[in-house]
Amino acid sequence: MAIIVHKYGGTSVGTPEKIKQVARRVKGVRDKGNEVVVIVSAMGHTTDELIDLMHQVTSDSDPREYDMLVSTGEQVSAALLAMALQDIGCPAVSLTGGQAGVVTEDIYKKARIKDVKLDRIKGGLKEGKVVVITGFQGVDSKGDIITIGRGGSDTSAVAIAAALKAEVCDIYTDVDGVYTTDPRIVPTARKLKYISYEEMLELASLGAQVLHPRSVECASIYNMVIHLRSSLKEDEGTYIMSPERIEESLDSSSTELGVARDKEAAKMEKKEAVRGIALDENIAKIGILKVPDKPGIAAKIFGALAAHKINVDMIVQSIHSAGTQADMAFTVDRPDLKKAFEVAKKVAKELDAVDVVSDADVSKVSLVGIGMVSQPGTASRMFEALAAEKINIQMISTSEIKISCVIKAEQGKKAVQILHKAFGLEKVA
Amino acid sequence: MAIIVHKYGGTSVGTPEKIKQVARRVKGVRDKGNEVVVIVSAMGHTTDELIDLMHQVTSDSDPREYDMLVSTGEQVSAALLAMALQDIGCPAVSLTGGQAGVVTEDIYKKARIKDVKLDRIKGGLKEGKVVVITGFQGVDSKGDIITIGRGGSDTSAVAIAAALKAEVCDIYTDVDGVYTTDPRIVPTARKLKYISYEEMLELASLGAQVLHPRSVECASIYNMVIHLRSSLKEDEGTYIMSPERIEESLDSSSTELGVARDKEAAKMEKKEAVRGIALDENIAKIGILKVPDKPGIAAKIFGALAAHKINVDMIVQSIHSAGTQADMAFTVDRPDLKKAFEVAKKVAKELDAVDVVSDADVSKVSLVGIGMVSQPGTASRMFEALAAEKINIQMISTSEIKISCVIKAEQGKKAVQILHKAFGLEKVA
Repeated sequence: MAIIVHKYGGTSVGTPEKIKQVARRVKGVRDKGNEVVVIVSAMGHTTDELIDLMHQVTSDSDPREYDMLVSTGEQVSAALLAMALQDIGCPAVSLTGGQAGVVTEDIYKKARIKDVKLDRIKGGLKEGKVVVITGFQGVDSKGDIITIGRGGSDTSAVAIAAALKAEVCDIYTDVDGVYTTDPRIVPTARKLKYISYEEMLELASLGAQVLHPRSVECASIYNMVIHLRSSLKEDEGTYIMSPERIEESLDSSSTELGVARDKEAAKMEKKEAVRGIALDENIAKIGILKVPDKPGIAAKIFGALAAHKINVDMIVQSIHSAGTQADMAFTVDRPDLKKAFEVAKKVAKELDAVDVVSDADVSKVSLVGIGMVSQPGTASRMFEALAAEKINIQMISTSEIKISCVIKAEQGKKAVQILHKAFGLEKVA
Repeated sequence: MAIIVHKYGGTSVGTPEKIKQVARRVKGVRDKGNEVVVIVSAMGHTTDELIDLMHQVTSDSDPREYDMLVSTGEQVSAALLAMALQDIGCPAVSLTGGQAGVVTEDIYKKARIKDVKLDRIKGGLKEGKVVVITGFQGVDSKGDIITIGRGGSDTSAVAIAAALKAEVCDIYTDVDGVYTTDPRIVPTARKLKYISYEEMLELASLGAQVLHPRSVECASIYNMVIHLRSSLKEDEGTYIMSPERIEESLDSSSTELGVARDKEAAKMEKKEAVRGIALDENIAKIGILKVPDKPGIAAKIFGALAAHKINVDMIVQSIHSAGTQADMAFTVDRPDLKKAFEVAKKVAKELDAVDVVSDADVSKVSLVGIGMVSQPGTASRMFEALAAEKINIQMISTSEIKISCVIKAEQGKKAVQILHKAFGLEKVA
């Protein structure tokens, strides 16, 4: 008997009717002789409504009480799903994170899961029940309720699936998989049949918000296959797994993991160096100009920003013409721009920099793909494609599996379209 | 340092603004140097809304999942109150019933509290915090969430106050105390300064819905003084305690328990045999006529009703004229009438009774007072007062501290007014 782990997001359990749909799907999987564990998020906008209530009683909420408050959302949807399952003749039991044995660090609001003690989950399965578990939460060593950060239900699902040694963790959401880029920007964007953890992580942190990055990280640690799919369709979505398993899966003649893929198409896909294109329109750029170049200036600048809890993304340091001065440019999340600019000005003064400039009118376009490591021509192809359309590149940053360019905000969508075509990522007609 | 226990009902924490009001009151009590524990109900109609969601996914809910679902209501209000306290500079921590050490029987939906393990509550108080606890719930031996029946937050408060050996348990609600009768029926109804557990229990089970009867029972077991009062005023409400403590309190020259009572008025009050008048308009009457009189007929009738989970209240058996037949009359809750009538007809047939009649058009008016035991004239005064106004009595039932009469429904309110006057329960002008 296989253990199947499903996770349903807030939209998928947003109304009683949708909860009943989920129940029917889950029952179908169980009726095929599987043991099923389901992780649920809070219904629709419940979490936001709770936070709204919170803002009406306090301006500065205590993290412990925050967790106590918002964790109720998942408890409601878990109990309702268990009831909906029972209502259609499928034995079920709901468990809070704590009851399910999800033990976290003693850090409120953003703990990591330390352990999943399986006694109660296994007990429930042994009794023939579907076990429904609240996502996004566990308990710490004191028995306090701890949430693991927003979007953390994905991570809960992966951790529980890994502890149960499930073959795959099905994450149901309102999109039907990972695309080569945002289909709203490029209508011919293609759904990927598989993608590696690293690529998914890059795409997620570059703005493709289909999966919480921590869940991908957690999956890569435990080598857990994530199947990201739509709760509205029966179709397969995108499998997220290690490059080795992708290889195996492609080489094997069987349809492993239930992946009834077109093998030839998949093999072709494998050859593509670029797997996806992401656009991040939520960034801003700051430049500290003509800093007297001496050891420690980067540490000083980024130390000060970190002390103000400002996340810095791309960093480009260039030697200025004279050779004794450097320009330091970096990007931050756009909402942080004002604060970051103030910090930068203060540090610039201490460092005797000549000027500080900022620009909120920028976007970041990125190519992602593991294969890029072995195909060194990718970067120049990217730059050429952008240049041919007169898109000026302001900053460049590269990693082994990613190339990002900062360009004018108004050219962002066009750049994605150009690159999607240039790298042949369209749907096969 | 005194330990003060407050309980706030759903109306008192119905909105964020009201939660902030409660926070200010609680802070005021703590600022006077007290250790404060607060038990809260769910906000306003939260529980009903959750039950409504439940009905949308299932017609027959599992008690375990029901408890899992509805217990979230108190968790939300407890967390919000803790946040509101912190927001005005009052350290606070919220605890679920389970975290607070409230251990119940392993019975979903209506367990009794078995124990309160005080470690975490005392720990919170030791850290100088107000401890806010979810009412209405605890955990069983498996760690499952268990609710203790609707209105159970009062019982939670009393049990926790008793475990903490608090002097008094302040129950804040939307009425300001216990009245001699419903002020909507008798505008001159007087607020009682004190009432015994037994009297309160009778009044509560007779329809005066200010306090959950189980909380009174629990208080009487632990001899815990309940102070029932309004969350909108600073005034004192009604103290519910043992007759012995009422005596002591009256005899003592000090203002014990903070009872700044007018001693003479209270002494006068003490002499009244009748303490309150209750009207129950939710009853119906069934009569099984001319049952051949032999041992075991009552057991058969009421056994059958109990098997169908029908609560029977008053029972009157009268020997019929012939001497070999008996009439058996009893009252049930009005919504149970149809079912009860069917059961009665079936049993009547088995017992060879001549007829079964029912009447939904009745009400029950009751006098309550411990002093009635020693004043045997009370019953006849009651009957005379009703007769003088041409109110016919259909059934009579007496106990040591109560006399109940079943009368025509349309005469119920008038009967209360007549009796309130006849026994001199009006406000002193």
